[in-house]
Parts: sequence; structure tokens; C-alpha cells
Amino acid sequence: MVEIAVMGYGVVGTGVIEVLAKHAEGLTLRAHEGIHVKYVLVRRDFPNPPMMGTFTKSFDQILNDPEVKIVVEVMGGLAPAYDYVRRCLLAGKSVVTSNKELVAAKGADLLQIAKDKNVNFLFEASVGGGIPIIRPMSQCLAANDVVGVAGILNGTTNYILTKMFRDGADFKNALAEAQRLGYAERDPSADVEGADACRKICILASLAYGKHVYPKQVHTEGITQIALADVEYAESWGGVVKLIGEVKRTANKKISIIVCPMFVERESQLANVDDVFNGIMVRGDVTGDIVFYGKGAGKMPTASAVVADVIDCVKHLKARKYLYWADGEPDYVEDYRNESRMFFVRAHAADADDAFDKAAELFSGAVRLFRKKPVSGEFAFVTEHLPEKDCDEKLQALEAAGITVDNRIRIGEM
Amino acid sequence: MVEIAVMGYGVVGTGVIEVLAKHAEGLTLRAHEGIHVKYVLVRRDFPNPPMMGTFTKSFDQILNDPEVKIVVEVMGGLAPAYDYVRRCLLAGKSVVTSNKELVAAKGADLLQIAKDKNVNFLFEASVGGGIPIIRPMSQCLAANDVVGVAGILNGTTNYILTKMFRDGADFKNALAEAQRLGYAERDPSADVEGADACRKICILASLAYGKHVYPKQVHTEGITQIALADVEYAESWGGVVKLIGEVKRTANKKISIIVCPMFVERESQLANVDDVFNGIMVRGDVTGDIVFYGKGAGKMPTASAVVADVIDCVKHLKARKYLYWADGEPDYVEDYRNESRMFFVRAHAADADDAFDKAAELFSGAVRLFRKKPVSGEFAFVTEHLPEKDCDEKLQALEAAGITVDNRIRIGEM
Repeated sequence: MVEIAVMGYGVVGTGVIEVLAKHAEGLTLRAHEGIHVKYVLVRRDFPNPPMMGTFTKSFDQILNDPEVKIVVEVMGGLAPAYDYVRRCLLAGKSVVTSNKELVAAKGADLLQIAKDKNVNFLFEASVGGGIPIIRPMSQCLAANDVVGVAGILNGTTNYILTKMFRDGADFKNALAEAQRLGYAERDPSADVEGADACRKICILASLAYGKHVYPKQVHTEGITQIALADVEYAESWGGVVKLIGEVKRTANKKISIIVCPMFVERESQLANVDDVFNGIMVRGDVTGDIVFYGKGAGKMPTASAVVADVIDCVKHLKARKYLYWADGEPDYVEDYRNESRMFFVRAHAADADDAFDKAAELFSGAVRLFRKKPVSGEFAFVTEHLPEKDCDEKLQALEAAGITVDNRIRIGEM
Repeated sequence: MVEIAVMGYGVVGTGVIEVLAKHAEGLTLRAHEGIHVKYVLVRRDFPNPPMMGTFTKSFDQILNDPEVKIVVEVMGGLAPAYDYVRRCLLAGKSVVTSNKELVAAKGADLLQIAKDKNVNFLFEASVGGGIPIIRPMSQCLAANDVVGVAGILNGTTNYILTKMFRDGADFKNALAEAQRLGYAERDPSADVEGADACRKICILASLAYGKHVYPKQVHTEGITQIALADVEYAESWGGVVKLIGEVKRTANKKISIIVCPMFVERESQLANVDDVFNGIMVRGDVTGDIVFYGKGAGKMPTASAVVADVIDCVKHLKARKYLYWADGEPDYVEDYRNESRMFFVRAHAADADDAFDKAAELFSGAVRLFRKKPVSGEFAFVTEHLPEKDCDEKLQALEAAGITVDNRIRIGEM
């Protein structure tokens, strides 16, 4: 029997306890040992604690109990999670977490301690909820160089964008509907402004290229500026708008990484990832494109991923799993404004036809788009490939010529 | 340094040698040890053997060399592969194989020997080529009951069906094109008649439910009877025709398993798996649907999966990976004719409208379909849900009434 502790008894924590109880028999078979929850760390009293585990408010009780070999951290946030996880690892306990904020901010540090102490620090649930991605990616990495990773990593924003596309709802109404259904929190900023997707692409980038990428190094744009007009133009162009987290290797051994809305072609495997689902494309030099798709969040899928990690810990109490990346470097991330892409531009002026002619002089190869319900004075086009900073210079020139640029959205190539 | 032997020097074998050579540095880092190919087992002489490995025609040399800890079997077929793999495992060597025929026919036997000898028998490359599926599925299994698995498991037939759908080519021409491009072999029967997909769904079913399913237990239909008319009706119905391998748990702890062409709705994640790609959907009771997508075959993707397994063996030379299923049972597979589904029926008679009215009397809730270029006397419809044997009885009644049934295709629900 292996004794574990679960720190946190919120949505994921209760799910973990449920999965452990429901699948006890199968888990024992797979882990080759029974798993017993000795402690559940809570912040407040519970009138009817569940059968498994002894509720405690004392972290020290867990830390100082040598019987506890594995600690599950599902509290979320950095404080006190970071301090607790750090001390557990230093005390020689393996740690499993679903906390993407923690892994994105402190992964390199915690992985180094785990390595030094010869214990495991696993976080499958931190990206893609119940979709296995961390472990398969490690597996792909074994015989591949990763050319790039691109993913729809946040279910809330994907629900909103799908709703805008399907029902013609504007951002505000789609967000309200997401909140009503419990897909978006009352303060939706971490989702709709891209911070959540940013943490996840940081974790995948760190894993893919072996060096920690911190969220502050990543240019991040959310979906709050996406108008229904943009979604309609995307449709007439032959695709959809998706919030994409993307990382690629550049020629100089740096990486190019960004989180932002992109136009995605209908034919892309990511275009059909709708509603609250996530999709992650890993491009290997040997395997080509591999896509992982499924529910990226939710209590039970996330809990299932946590429990899979716990089993892996039980099976590797003596032999550490190889999962490691080094600390990051300030110059490791390429300036995103140097990245060359195509761009979608929506603008307006007194005379749209005349304004588009002006735009076409600046952007050679600009292709004009039209939407179903044209709006007087509005026009839109897709540019040729050019570096982002050049695109923005040309857009400034357009503005100087009396044309108002309403939005500029990157065109994805995945 | 870990010494390995590669048995077979065909397409996959040369790929394995290439990946090992090209990624030597990264592999050493990941495996924590260098990997050295001590032998390559060949059947004929090679004028310019590659740098790595000593070519030998003697299996006994490999078997009797205690330095060889891991043997890669990429010969294909059952003889002599089964005998060789068996003896390697009995000699305490771990074995990695890409040979789906071997795993589908002898998996339970070989896994039992591996268990008894405390060595590994791994076969990630046997299903889905470079797509990680065996390991992620084991991972999903840790905290899930698998409700079902459905997949497009054969790239050749998927290329042919895609070609029929997109270009309006008939089966014969699409097959010829596939052969011209090297996607289909000169004798395409193992692909187009479903045997290859059958082996793969047997492996996934055995893994998902812990009991070996043998190919002969699985009702298997290929795509040779799919006419262009069927593909056109599928389009008007709102979907595509795909060759699907499917397994589900039934209420009585048996399984329902089949390989056959199915109508798949456009909205399904499997509908957009086109060309030579594979897509596998695993439905977990906790995670919901998870889909894995990528190139399901090809020299380098397959080789990459083999090498990933070799690395896993190196890392687990002492601790065996948990991968095991028990032997099968004769009554374990439910009679497929008891399975209730909807069916697509294409038929003809002198008067199509009158004939459809007769059909609608037999099949309550039959919905008629139309295709772009109607053919005089031809008609088609989709039935209500009913057991397959009931459907076929009704179709016999139609035939008795002078209506010729040209095709009957199952409607998928994935």
C-alpha cells in the first residue's frame, strides 16, 4: 500500500478522490500496489468529510510524515502551492500537479529539485486536461526533433469563438452564454486575455526544446478584440478564427512563440476543434504532424490525468521518470515582430474601394475579402507574407492616409 | 552502452538504423545510455552494409550473445518472426516489434512469456505508425474504463476512399492511383479487404479490455464493394464513407467488434481524417472522447515509434513496463448481427418511387436519400435503428418483392 496526500479539495481535488475510490481495483492492478489517501489538505472545515483520507489543515503533518511518498497538489495558484511543492520534493516525496500556473512559472526549478532528490515531478493534467500530451510528447521526442507545436489550448475561448462563428453571436453575448453554462468564470480575464493558453504553450515549449520559457517572454493577445465581422471574413476566406498558442524552432537555435487569435484554414486539423474541446498539433521531423484532441478541462478528465500520474509515480518510486528541462535564458525567445506571416486586415474609410486600392499599393499581392452583409466604407484584405513589423509600418502609413485600421489578425499555417 | 540487435533490414529496419544514427546524441541523453546496434539479421548478402551493426544471417548468433539485451523485430509475417521473438523473450531479452500480424496473432502468448521472464515486449509501432497510441491508451486506462475505440486504421484504404469522395474516381481507378503512388501494394488485398485494419483493432481491443481478441473472431469487410454511388449518397446524407475498426464493451462483459466501411457524419472528428492519415478515437468513461491523428504508416514514422520503444526498454531494463493482456476466449465476442445500428441501403427496381414506398413499409422511419446525378430505377435510404439481423431479414423480403439490393452500409456513431 502506497500512502499519498492530496493538497486541495476544490473541483479537481474532489475529482481525484472520486476517481481513486471508483477505480480502486483497476488502479491497484495497474499500479501493482494499493493507493491510500492518508491526508487531504484543506483550508476550512468540512462537515461531512469523505471516506478516504484524513482531513487536515496542517501542511507540516503531511511534510513530516515519512509514510507519505506521493503528494498531489491541486490547490492552484503560486502561493502557497510553490512553497509546499518545493518542500515536498526536497523532503524526497514525488509530486503530481495539475497546476499550470505553477509549472509555467517554476517548472525548471522544481524539475531540478526532483532530479537532485531522485523523485518524480509530474504534471500531465496541466495541459489539455484529460488529453494525454505531456507523456506522448516525451515519447515523440525520443526519436524526433520537434519542428513546432500549435494548439487550441483554452476551452473557454474556443467555446466563445465557436459560438460567434455558428450563431453569429458577438463576443459579449457569447461570453455571457459561456458564463451561464459554467464554461467561463465570473472574472474571465485569464481565459479571454490569453494568460491560460500562454501558460500551457510555455509548458509545451519548455518540454519540446528542453529550456524553460516563462509566460512573460511570450507575446500574448486574447480574443476580446475579435469582432463578429472578423469571424465572418474568416468564413469567406475559407476558415475560422481560433485562439492559437504556437511555438517553433528558429534557425539560430532560438524559438518563436506567441499566443493570439489566428485565421485557421478549414482543411487544418485544428479548424474542426470546436466548443470547449482542445486540439494540439505536434510537428516532428520524423513523424510529421500528430494531433491530440479531446476535452481540455473539466473536473473528471483533469482528475483522470492526475491519477494516471499518481500511478506512474507508484510504479517509479525507485526509478525516476525522465522529464526535465533546463532553466530559461533572456535572449532565448525571438522578437515576435520579426516573424514573417500573412495577415488579415479590416479597415474603413469614406470610400472603401479607393481605400483598398491604396492598401493594395502598399501591400503587393493583397487579396480583398467580402462578407455576406457588406457595411458601407468597410473593407478587408489578406496580405502577402511579410515580417510583422513591416506589416505594422504599412498599416501606420494607411492610417496616415486617412484610413482607419479596425483589426489585424495573423494567418496561421498549421 | 546497451547492445541491441535488429532483425530485418527492409523498409522499417533501414529506417530504424537511420533514426538511431541520426539522433544518436539525443537518444543517449534520453535513454541515459548509448545504444549500439551489434547485429542486423538479414536473409541475403548486402554489398555495402551500413556503418552501424554487423550483418549476420545467423539468428543463433543474436540469441546466444548475452550482451544483446534488446532485440528489434521488423521482419514482418509470422514465420520465422514468432519463433524468433519467442526464443528471444525466453532467453531474457526484451523485444520491440512493429509487426501487427504477430501481435494480433500471438500477443497474449508473447506478453505472458515477457511477464514470466520479467522483460519487456513492446509494439507501439504496430498500430498507427508514428502516432503514439499504445502508450497513451495504457495511460488513459489507468483511471478510465474504455467505453469504446473507433478508428481509421489503414492509410491505403483511406487514401482510396478520399480519392473517390474528392475526385469522383471509382474504386478501381482510385486503387490504381494509390498503387502508382506507392500507397498500395501490387497485391492490395490485405489493405482493401480489411485484414490490416482488423489486426490493429484486435491489438487495441486486447489492450483496452485486457483479453486477447483474435482476427478470426472479428467480422471483417473491406472496401472493394464500395461504389461511387455510395460515396455520393454519403455526401448527400452529410458525411463520408470510411473504413472503420470499432470495438465496444457490451452489457454482459463481452465485446462488440467489427471492421467495415461506415457512413461517418461530417461533424465527427474521424470524418476529416483524409488521405493516408489515421485517426483513432478512444472513448473513456472519465475523459470522454480523445482522438489521436497522424500518419499511420511510412518508413520513418514507424521507425520513430520503434526507436521510442527501444529507449523505453533501455530505461526499463530492470523494471518491467506494465503492458499485459490475458488469452482470449471463444465466446468473448458478441455476434455482430445482434448489434443495433442504422443502415444505408442502395437498391434498384423498375419503379424506384414505388419500390421506396415498399421499403418504407418494412423499415418504419426510413429516410430517402438523393444524389446529384439520379439514375433511373435507383433509390437509397437510411433505416431506423435496428439489429443487423433484422435489417438483413427485411432486405431479403425486399428482394423477394422484386427489388434488387445493391449495397448495405452501416452508419457509424462516433
